[in-house]
Amino acid sequence: VPEAVWTIVVAAGAARRFGRAKQFEDLGGRRVVDWAVDAAASLSNGIVVVLPPGDPVGWPAQPGVLTVTGGATRSESVRRGLEAVPADAGVVCVHDAARPFATPALFAAVVAAVRAGAAGAVPGTPVTDTVKVVDAEGVVLATPERSTLVAVQTPQAFRADVLRRAHAAGGEGTDDATLVEALGARVLVVPGEARNRKLTNPEDLDWARTQVDAGAVR
Amino acid sequence: VPEAVWTIVVAAGAARRFGRAKQFEDLGGRRVVDWAVDAAASLSNGIVVVLPPGDPVGWPAQPGVLTVTGGATRSESVRRGLEAVPADAGVVCVHDAARPFATPALFAAVVAAVRAGAAGAVPGTPVTDTVKVVDAEGVVLATPERSTLVAVQTPQAFRADVLRRAHAAGGEGTDDATLVEALGARVLVVPGEARNRKLTNPEDLDWARTQVDAGAVR
Repeated sequence: VPEAVWTIVVAAGAARRFGRAKQFEDLGGRRVVDWAVDAAASLSNGIVVVLPPGDPVGWPAQPGVLTVTGGATRSESVRRGLEAVPADAGVVCVHDAARPFATPALFAAVVAAVRAGAAGAVPGTPVTDTVKVVDAEGVVLATPERSTLVAVQTPQAFRADVLRRAHAAGGEGTDDATLVEALGARVLVVPGEARNRKLTNPEDLDWARTQVDAGAVR
Repeated sequence: VPEAVWTIVVAAGAARRFGRAKQFEDLGGRRVVDWAVDAAASLSNGIVVVLPPGDPVGWPAQPGVLTVTGGATRSESVRRGLEAVPADAGVVCVHDAARPFATPALFAAVVAAVRAGAAGAVPGTPVTDTVKVVDAEGVVLATPERSTLVAVQTPQAFRADVLRRAHAAGGEGTDDATLVEALGARVLVVPGEARNRKLTNPEDLDWARTQVDAGAVR
């Protein structure tokens, strides 16, 4: 029997850049977050959705889906979700609610990489822009060689015990792998998906709707 | 009298990722490269367009626009363009032909930063994805703090003498600023433009056409 897989869907963001809680906007008759939950469902024995403090949206009861209230930061929200994941989960995925188009195949790929021995596995795509490291005044400090860079996505899968250990210290990161890397554990990048964009700006939601209208996603 | 500004428009790429020479595709009745040249024209005393070896496209003669043939790499192509820039140019901009929507205001901003004392100035936008450095097997080596990263665009402006010195060594980089930085010279990042995307994939050209059709650019 394979170990249980649980997925934490992080829907707690205030979406400062977007201007409103983008993860609850309508996208082809479902909310953005519902797309994320549905994609996770095929691979997961259970799902924890982390909602914004105050739960302004309500959440229809759904079998196999728990809800918890998020914290002040993304990492704190993941920690709250992790507390709700049962102790017998062997693999935990963390997925951003604002990425509606991750496929079940992508969940399968990151979980398979962890089952094959990695402490963590994250989807990544090549970086097409030149990226520079700058100081607070905008002066360039360094330009990392572009061919060594990947832009990472979610879902990110981890050995449950490693993820719990990574979060036990209470650190902060823009993704969970960063905290796992800080332990010195091995995180592997698997090919990401071009359509698995994070909806950051209102134009991204417009784009997502054109994808739905064109039948490119479902 | 302000020093002369010349712009090198790099149109020599074979566009391996795109599949064909995207910079010569039609975009609202002009070629993609014509958009780039037109945006540069407002700020430039002269323009050098670097064409692919063999010049498969032809190039209508245009006042104030020189053409040269590119080399095997992007940096080599810029060097060929730089040889055609007159000695009295004080500021040289380098711009990718595949970025049709850079505005004249963006050219003005990078040139102004160089006139104000920077050796180079490049447009940059915040990085929204978490970016990781990986080894050849895809194992994560590091995750730079996202708030210190910018994704840079063109046009990039430089003191002409510094850019010539940077290219004299014959180095390679995914942009020109990288070579200038290698001299230890000060490169400043100025705010980039969201629409100033590089057309990398065929979907990017579709996106560009929707921008033109919607009247969002001209």
